[in-house]
Formats: sequence, C-alpha cells, structure tokens
Amino acid sequence: MSKPLTNRKEVAKLAGVSEATVSRVLNGVGPMKESTRERVLDAAKRLNYELNAVASSFARGKSGNLGVVLPYVPKVHLFSTYYFSELLSGIGEAVRSKGYGLLLLFRDPSAVYDYASLYRTQRVDACIVLGTNTAETELEGINRLAEERLPFCVMDQKFDNPLVSIVAADHEQGSYDAVKHLISKGCQRIGFLNGSMQYSNSWDRMSGYLRALEEAEIKFDESIVYQGNYSRTSGKNAAEDVYRDLNELDAIFVGNDRMAIGLMQGLREKGCRLPEDLKIVSYDDSDAASLTEPPLTTVKVPFFEMGRLAAERLLALLADKENSEPIISEKLQTELKVRKSSGS
Amino acid sequence: MSKPLTNRKEVAKLAGVSEATVSRVLNGVGPMKESTRERVLDAAKRLNYELNAVASSFARGKSGNLGVVLPYVPKVHLFSTYYFSELLSGIGEAVRSKGYGLLLLFRDPSAVYDYASLYRTQRVDACIVLGTNTAETELEGINRLAEERLPFCVMDQKFDNPLVSIVAADHEQGSYDAVKHLISKGCQRIGFLNGSMQYSNSWDRMSGYLRALEEAEIKFDESIVYQGNYSRTSGKNAAEDVYRDLNELDAIFVGNDRMAIGLMQGLREKGCRLPEDLKIVSYDDSDAASLTEPPLTTVKVPFFEMGRLAAERLLALLADKENSEPIISEKLQTELKVRKSSGS
Repeated sequence: MSKPLTNRKEVAKLAGVSEATVSRVLNGVGPMKESTRERVLDAAKRLNYELNAVASSFARGKSGNLGVVLPYVPKVHLFSTYYFSELLSGIGEAVRSKGYGLLLLFRDPSAVYDYASLYRTQRVDACIVLGTNTAETELEGINRLAEERLPFCVMDQKFDNPLVSIVAADHEQGSYDAVKHLISKGCQRIGFLNGSMQYSNSWDRMSGYLRALEEAEIKFDESIVYQGNYSRTSGKNAAEDVYRDLNELDAIFVGNDRMAIGLMQGLREKGCRLPEDLKIVSYDDSDAASLTEPPLTTVKVPFFEMGRLAAERLLALLADKENSEPIISEKLQTELKVRKSSGS
Repeated sequence: MSKPLTNRKEVAKLAGVSEATVSRVLNGVGPMKESTRERVLDAAKRLNYELNAVASSFARGKSGNLGVVLPYVPKVHLFSTYYFSELLSGIGEAVRSKGYGLLLLFRDPSAVYDYASLYRTQRVDACIVLGTNTAETELEGINRLAEERLPFCVMDQKFDNPLVSIVAADHEQGSYDAVKHLISKGCQRIGFLNGSMQYSNSWDRMSGYLRALEEAEIKFDESIVYQGNYSRTSGKNAAEDVYRDLNELDAIFVGNDRMAIGLMQGLREKGCRLPEDLKIVSYDDSDAASLTEPPLTTVKVPFFEMGRLAAERLLALLADKENSEPIISEKLQTELKVRKSSGS
C-alpha cells in the first residue's frame, strides 16, 4: 500500500552529491554552499525523504522520539496549567520542525524514576525532565541519569551536579524587578505569597524579593511572608491571612498568576477594593493575567522559548554529537508587564 | 545496573496461578475472585512487574505508546488552547494509569498523513486523531486508516464512514440549550458568531441554534450570522460588524470562549456596556470564562472526560481484542453554565 522507504543513497543520487553531504544538509551541520543545500533539500522533498528519515531511524536503533517526563499529580489537569502547556508548545515546535515525535511519560514523584531504561529500550533518543524538585527520589533519578551521560535536560530547576543540563529563567532578577516596581510606586510594606519551597525557583523568588528590599533599606519581616503551593486554591486560602494583615500591607508580591487570581477572588469576597486596598504584582504572565479585574501586573516568563531551546539543543546534540556541547546551561531573561493591579 | 526484566511467568509462580490468570488480572479482563486478584497484584508489585510490562512489550513487537496526532498550526501555542490541553490531560490520565506512554505527533494538514506507518514501524499501538476536519487530505488520511482496521479514534469530528471510531460531545444539544436560555431571558434578535465550517461541530452548533429559533417561532436571519475561526483575534475582528448591528441585536451566541473574549474586548473598546447593551452566551467553559468581566455564561464541554474515554476504550481494545467492540462511538453531554454575561 505504501511506497518502500526512500534512503539517503537515492537522495544523494538525485541531488548528485555524496551521502555524507545529504546527512550534513539534513542535519544542518557544518558550512554548505547554498546551491548544494537547495539541491539536496529539493531532492529529499521530491522523494518524500523527511518522513521516512524518522521511520528509518528505527533501523539504526533510534526511536525518533524526544521524551518529556512529567510528574503525575492526581486531579491536576496538567496540560491545562500555563507552565506545562507553554513549555510543551515550545518543545513541540522544535520536535515538529525536525520530524521527531514527542513522547510524554509520567513519573511517580515518590519513586526513583528509571530514566536510563527509556534509552535502553529505545523509547527515546533524549529527554526533557519537567516539574522536578528537591525530593530525595527526584534528585536520585536525575543524578543517575547524569552519571550515564545520556542526553537530557532539566527544565527550570537547579542541581548541584555539573553533569546536569539545565534550561531555566532568571527568577531572582524577575522577582527583584517585581518588588522594585512596587517600591517605585511608594510601597514600603510589601508582603510575599510564595509557592512550594521544594522548587529551586521559589528560593530564587525569595532571593530577588530580599535583594530589592535590602537595596531600598526596607527591613525584612517574616510575618508578612505567606506560603502557598502555586495553586489557585492555595491563593484563595491565603486571603484569610492577608486580609487579617491588610492594615499592615501596602502591596503583595505573589509567586504565580494562579495564586494571585485565587487571592484576589478571596479578598474581593471579603469586600476589598483592588488595587486601592492592596497593590499586587504576580508572576508568569499567563493568558488569564490580562483578563482579571484589575488586570495583573506580572513577570512574563518565556516558557515557550525555554521549551523550544531545550529541545533544539538536545536535537542538535543528537544530530552532531562531535560538534555540540554535551552539557546545556541556559538562563533566559524575564520581563515585567505593568498593568493596573499594581496601581499603574 | 538494572535488574533483568521480570516476566509474567515469575509473577504467575510467585502468585501460584497460571500465566493466563496473570494476564487477565493485569489487563482487568473478565471476572476474577478478589483473593486471586490481590495475590497477583501483590506478586506483580513485589517483582516490580508493572513498569517492566511496558518495557517487555517491545519484545512482543509493541511500542507501549498511544499516539496522539495533532495538526501543526504555525504560531499557535497548541497546548495552551483549552480544547487541546483538556483533551490531552484526559488522555494522559488514562495512559498513565495503564503505564503507557503518550506519543505526540504533528501532521501537516495540507498533506495526506500516513497513519499506517506509525503502526508498521511500531511507534504506536493505537492512536487518537485530534483537530481533524473535512479537508480532502484529512478525510483521505482517516479513511485509509479505517480501511486498515487499525485501532484508532477520532475526536469530536463526524465522518461518513462506519469504520471510523469517534468520541464526541453533543454540540447540537449544547447550542440549542444556549440559545434557548437567551430566549428564556426575553431575547428575540439573537446573533450567532460561529467558528470555521470545516469542523462538523460548527455545523452542529448551527443546527442547535436553528432548532431553538424554530421552536420559539423566531425567523432565522442570515444577516446576523457572523463568521470567525475560533481564535480570539477573529472574535475581536467580528466586533466591528456586531457593533454596526448593535441596535438590531438583543444577544449573541458565540461558538467558543476565545472568540467571546475577543468580541467582548472589541465591543468594550467601542464603549459598549456588557451585558446591558448585548447579552452573550458562549461555548467551552474554559478557565478564562469565569475570569472575564462580566463572567461568561457558557456551555461546558467535557473535554477531559472525552479524552480519557477515548484512550481508555482504545487501551481496553489493545488489552483484549476478542471481547472489545472494535468501533468506538460515544457522544457525551454538555452542560450550560449560567453567569452574568447573559444578564443572569
């Protein structure tokens, strides 16, 4: 029913070049005359080679898949959270353009995940680890993977292991910018509703918050630091404590938009006027941030770009191991989006 | 480094049952004494069999993956759309509980996608097709797949082919409910901003709209039917025409929340007060629907449950072909969520 698979040899013959040249063009490796490149791409297209290249990767002992390993969290519609959906969109963009598949795998965060078996059984050629944290089991899984020197990348979580590849955003600077903005609006008493401390980026947010306070010679007051877990419900629950301290507070910095939305909902139910009674700056710049009333001033995190970058770097490593840096270490910049919730 | 794979024989031996019994218990097939079931599950757990079951599926010529084939749409952050993210969360829930992987693959909607090769090359054991439509290339790809009698399911799109498995929602009824609600609020002149007509569910929405009008003896007026494409931008663009007809309209039914949010934004920029100047009912009940001002009255579609159901049915078919219906045909009910945008 279907044509037999086209091979590299046929493409080389049609283009009038060597097989090695075909590989270099299709993998985007090394310098190449533009006319040669075009001739190869044209021949590959005419022979419908691109799709088959992935299929034939099986014959070479490759899966043609980039793995994405996610924590399984009961009752959370994981792909509906802005963080995961944007990272995945970015990863998807990169794998699609290279003809790879994206294999989603769920790990139980309470057990040590056996990443290496994914490579051994040829389910993936490389993988990206999302939503990991400092739990013992999570650290152990990542460290074992790093020891095997298999191609992988952790997203947005720090590890004290130079063999661990990481793509992250600069949350220390992002948080500093957020709090500094509030200070520039005349706020002195600035509360902080942070997310779970098992994520290194929660510590980064705390560091940025402290740096901005210190620079403005505002004394840190632990009694106005509140603890959430990045869910909307935890934000709404925090409204209780924040409302109690309302006379003490000029503003609050919130670790993500979801918590901020819950907090605003909780405060409004108690009769608060926002931003008059409390200025708010949050984090992520999710779709919802511009829809709330008042719209949220928030720190935009380039999740899509982070996902795309991690995937592109891993696929480049697979395509040309010799000329690629084996350890990926990237930190992307955030951007403050000023809207009405900070009294702007 | 890792243990050799546990096989079914070892589990059977430890549990003191036959290998066939182990299969039946682990695949959840047929009646089984509870004590036997527990003994097998206990043995499987002690031997760490579940994970290895998927790994060993390779030896049996299986991939251990459920494929999800998505259209690639440039510049759209696909996983960030409510429709895709909820469907995927539901599919993810089902595959996770069975230890499968979820392989995302992107198709170019302008070419006939070669689904069969995914099975032939053992990349997937079954697949779910998302976002398909009535374009020639799309029909051709699905019809070829159906002819091969391979396990697959199309999501939320009708096909005139009894061999095509479909899980859908009842959008005709959902739309009827939406429009009937507006009529019950005293509205007579009800516009309709629909999405792209290449999706069968856009036709379903039109049918439901017409049925509600007819039942109330309201004459259909083509001049107040507006065309969008389910994007927020298309909703905002439609604001131009809707504003022009504002004196003609009591209300508008909008095909999804994204378009409704764009439309509301566009109308507000022209100075409209909502819902005073125009009542709105939309469709989906995405997260954003309750965040807008006013909050949207909208038809909740059980995307999560649709995704989970399709995946569960396919995995059951893989586990026990003999005792499963090969063609899946399910239609789930929607639910009207009444909020302030319809003047409630």
